[in-house]
Amino acid sequence: MAYEAPLEDMRFVMNQLAGLPQLATLPGCEEAGPDTVAAILTEGARFASERLAPLNPVGDRQPPTRDADGVHATPGFAAAFRQYADNGWQGVTHPAEYGGQGLPKLLAAALAEMFNGANLAFALCPLLSDGAIEALLIAGNDALKREYVPKLVAGEWTGTMNLTEAQAGSDLSLVRTRAEPVGDGRYRIVGTKIFITYGDHDLADNIVHLVLARLADAPAGIKGLSLFLVPKWLPDAAGKPAQRNDVHCLSLEHKLGIHGSPTAVLQFGEHEGATGFLVGQENRGLETMFIMMNAARFMVGMQGVGIAEHATQQARAYARERLQSRAVIGAADGPAPIIRQPDVRRMLATMRCLTEAGRMVAYQAAAAADRSRHEIEPSLRDAQRARYAFLVPIVKGWCTEMSLEVSSLAVQVHGGSGYIEETGVAQFYRDARILTIYEGTTAIQANDLIGRKILRDGGAVARALFAEIRTTASALGDGDALARAYGDGLTVAVESLDRAVAHVLKAGAANEIVAHAVAVPMLLGFGYVLGGWQYGRALLALAAGPAASDVSEAYAQGKRASARFYLSGVLPRAEGLCRAILACDEADAAASETVWGVPDALV
Amino acid sequence: MAYEAPLEDMRFVMNQLAGLPQLATLPGCEEAGPDTVAAILTEGARFASERLAPLNPVGDRQPPTRDADGVHATPGFAAAFRQYADNGWQGVTHPAEYGGQGLPKLLAAALAEMFNGANLAFALCPLLSDGAIEALLIAGNDALKREYVPKLVAGEWTGTMNLTEAQAGSDLSLVRTRAEPVGDGRYRIVGTKIFITYGDHDLADNIVHLVLARLADAPAGIKGLSLFLVPKWLPDAAGKPAQRNDVHCLSLEHKLGIHGSPTAVLQFGEHEGATGFLVGQENRGLETMFIMMNAARFMVGMQGVGIAEHATQQARAYARERLQSRAVIGAADGPAPIIRQPDVRRMLATMRCLTEAGRMVAYQAAAAADRSRHEIEPSLRDAQRARYAFLVPIVKGWCTEMSLEVSSLAVQVHGGSGYIEETGVAQFYRDARILTIYEGTTAIQANDLIGRKILRDGGAVARALFAEIRTTASALGDGDALARAYGDGLTVAVESLDRAVAHVLKAGAANEIVAHAVAVPMLLGFGYVLGGWQYGRALLALAAGPAASDVSEAYAQGKRASARFYLSGVLPRAEGLCRAILACDEADAAASETVWGVPDALV
Repeated sequence: MAYEAPLEDMRFVMNQLAGLPQLATLPGCEEAGPDTVAAILTEGARFASERLAPLNPVGDRQPPTRDADGVHATPGFAAAFRQYADNGWQGVTHPAEYGGQGLPKLLAAALAEMFNGANLAFALCPLLSDGAIEALLIAGNDALKREYVPKLVAGEWTGTMNLTEAQAGSDLSLVRTRAEPVGDGRYRIVGTKIFITYGDHDLADNIVHLVLARLADAPAGIKGLSLFLVPKWLPDAAGKPAQRNDVHCLSLEHKLGIHGSPTAVLQFGEHEGATGFLVGQENRGLETMFIMMNAARFMVGMQGVGIAEHATQQARAYARERLQSRAVIGAADGPAPIIRQPDVRRMLATMRCLTEAGRMVAYQAAAAADRSRHEIEPSLRDAQRARYAFLVPIVKGWCTEMSLEVSSLAVQVHGGSGYIEETGVAQFYRDARILTIYEGTTAIQANDLIGRKILRDGGAVARALFAEIRTTASALGDGDALARAYGDGLTVAVESLDRAVAHVLKAGAANEIVAHAVAVPMLLGFGYVLGGWQYGRALLALAAGPAASDVSEAYAQGKRASARFYLSGVLPRAEGLCRAILACDEADAAASETVWGVPDALV
Repeated sequence: MAYEAPLEDMRFVMNQLAGLPQLATLPGCEEAGPDTVAAILTEGARFASERLAPLNPVGDRQPPTRDADGVHATPGFAAAFRQYADNGWQGVTHPAEYGGQGLPKLLAAALAEMFNGANLAFALCPLLSDGAIEALLIAGNDALKREYVPKLVAGEWTGTMNLTEAQAGSDLSLVRTRAEPVGDGRYRIVGTKIFITYGDHDLADNIVHLVLARLADAPAGIKGLSLFLVPKWLPDAAGKPAQRNDVHCLSLEHKLGIHGSPTAVLQFGEHEGATGFLVGQENRGLETMFIMMNAARFMVGMQGVGIAEHATQQARAYARERLQSRAVIGAADGPAPIIRQPDVRRMLATMRCLTEAGRMVAYQAAAAADRSRHEIEPSLRDAQRARYAFLVPIVKGWCTEMSLEVSSLAVQVHGGSGYIEETGVAQFYRDARILTIYEGTTAIQANDLIGRKILRDGGAVARALFAEIRTTASALGDGDALARAYGDGLTVAVESLDRAVAHVLKAGAANEIVAHAVAVPMLLGFGYVLGGWQYGRALLALAAGPAASDVSEAYAQGKRASARFYLSGVLPRAEGLCRAILACDEADAAASETVWGVPDALV
């Protein structure tokens, strides 16, 4: 099925809601003027539609294979990756001194949405390279940066993240892979890593593995983990892959989805031990990995938005085409397209609203990341850094959870045909299912949100957001009937969420069971309310008419309709979640070592 | 993964909530005494665990194959089906005069839950035979009944439903398959049917296709459909399959799930035309098919409950076993089972509550069906018939929708392992996805509920239910703290739903767009409230202590905990749904030919 990047919405959100024009006035962002950005988006959209989307079903049906030479990617992936690299897509946000273009994350977010929306299994590869680049830039020494970063930025080599082991998934303190110094700044790495995305492939000349391992004298737990760079091929002095390192793919997983992306079991040190290089300081590996993971988490959120958009497009196209039953909406003779059925419209509207809301929230987060680097005033940088840190778990958690709902609804719109693999929509349902799991499950995101982002600062960042939401709600009160109704609904939602946060600051601070138990409902509640806030801001932006926002009349009407649907059909979910949060209290948890009345006997 | 039928819960629900002891006093139900039922349930549970569950992954990995001889089932399925038939499972509810045991539907529901829970792909085959038997008993002439029903009841032959054609899915008025009388009570059937479950296989000696087709002079639309019996093999005078009929499997579908069940494209009349026999009157085929479909719809609801139970069991077992992170709940040294994580418990509790609520509502419906046949007082029979008719779309729609959520959460509890096919839990996610689609999508169920079950009688059946729910809520007010809190929550929920129904009776009656647009939220709202009602009744039943309900102390504690979780974590969803219903009004729909503010531009 064709994928078309939703360029008009992307531009509106970037320009009117995420503040791209203001961003482009900051030092270091001057390249991101509206014309440049528009041109890059158009090129990206073309690449996504023409090169990546057609390979999406191919990857699903012809997964990578493994033989004695290693892993061979899905037919067509290597050529597409070559073109991806040649077009410079890998380098969009990376520094010019390493061959990149140094453009804002906000633009990278939109591009990631397109590429992942068109072909999730393909786009995972560059996504992981981005993480490796970021880790090396922040923690690598100059030699490593000089040797590896330009190759990664150019897409000549790719990167991986090696965290998980069979006994160490969400809990990295259990990592057992060992590292031993062998002099000359080198280390011998021995261990087995699992679930390594693009852990082996033939898309590029070399693979740069970033590996968490433990030195012999390291403390137990996560404070004894160091990060190592282990290339598949050790480069020679000229930077050419020269000597095969002792890291090998033992097997590929047979997964529910993202078949086109090889998920490897990697053995480091089957023979003489894999040669690695320390990245950053000893025993500080997790900190660096977290930088990489935060970047990756944000991008997984974009994967959620991208796949939701693609699934919605496919369902809408089918609903416009499939003739069945008489029209309930509008007059028509004989069987009408099922889009004339109100429930089909309800499903499509839900899908559209969730996707748009995810996009608006995620682009906000990307803009905060950019401002945290480029604002002139240090206090503004700090505030934006805190906001970005706050939003990352929400973007990752909520945008992926909503993508499960959207991809499931896409199957439902197709009816029986949706269940047949050849139709293609079931692939979204299977592919999306990984998104709430990898790079930290939704619960991991939610615990991060509650623990590090809400409890640690006593709710300061949350309250700053609430204040802005109230300002939006109040401004809506001066608008037309829809705006006023919207403002009222937004107020109800934000006050509920504020009460829920206040409850958690008290009950959750006193009892960690409560904090953990309400974490996912809280994360989802924030997602719905922040999405609702952005719809409110969209209504305000559109109040001056479409021309003022540089959008078409049809776009403006659609956005207003979608805001209206969100208000009645989606936003009320926040209150159900908040009610569940309030029902979970300390006395309950403390009294019974249970939570929400759930004793061991129940589970 | 092992499956164990939840016998204690099944018995509690049957005896304490669905009124099996009272049912067993009615004429025609005397066989269904508690000891007999308990013995049959125990045997069924054993068959499900020992014979069907082990074949569940086999069917997923080795789907049926097709060659010149026809379709060959998954290895092991034929022997299991033979044993199923020999044990008499196919005949449990069917009349003794045709070789069945004439036991209540309530018992059949529990057995269907087990068999489908253990192996959905397998259990689909007897499920369709049941539908064929029911249709023949109600509409077939004596000759057809004599010739076909005993074979179906004995499991020597199996049945299918042939409705769908490429252009006719949800809309059966578009059926094109033709039938032509050829004398001697026979008809020549020509057409192509798709999505025919177990349309061909080698589990049994013959396949009895029930086929919707159109006579030459029939009116257009659904009032011109007649039902025909088309056997794969025409029997000789002795009832042995003798002459191959002209119906052939053209291909099998490649599906997202239920791989073990062959989904066939059937060609009727490739050569001389398939020979068929009219079932019931000409042009009245849909009425008979609806009987069959209603029985099948109820049973698809049981499939939802069954697969949700199995997925929950697998997730719980994994959560008890998988060591990761320190215990948040309870003390433990070193990595603890993830069931000690509050969010894992929240997921498992959600899964348990939805499954139990589905079971309670579905068994209520089965008991209503039984009482509609066996109550002595005609007015009671009528009332129970109306109640069963009301509940069928809810059981079908809600129990399958919740099974999507439960199977998705089961994957989530497994983390990364859940995404690997060998773990087995992804199969539930794929298998369950058909349940909201086949035998009428959730929207079809919801339109049935709103149109035929609420608007047609002015909400009479709904209000009778509300009155009973209020009685339960009021009785809870005399109980302990949990009961009182539960009663309050239930009151809030039922009053919301009552307002939503009142709104639909007004706005939906005036404007069918409104009626259709709120149909699915209404169906789901009923599901949550009826599930909540049954939990309330369970609390009342348990108030006298476990012994009075013949359950263990642990069971009673678990059920109370689960009711408490449902109250705070699940029941509030009903109010969000009701709010969305109230937001959809006539003026809105009429003014813009849009619904919930969703114009064409949006979708």
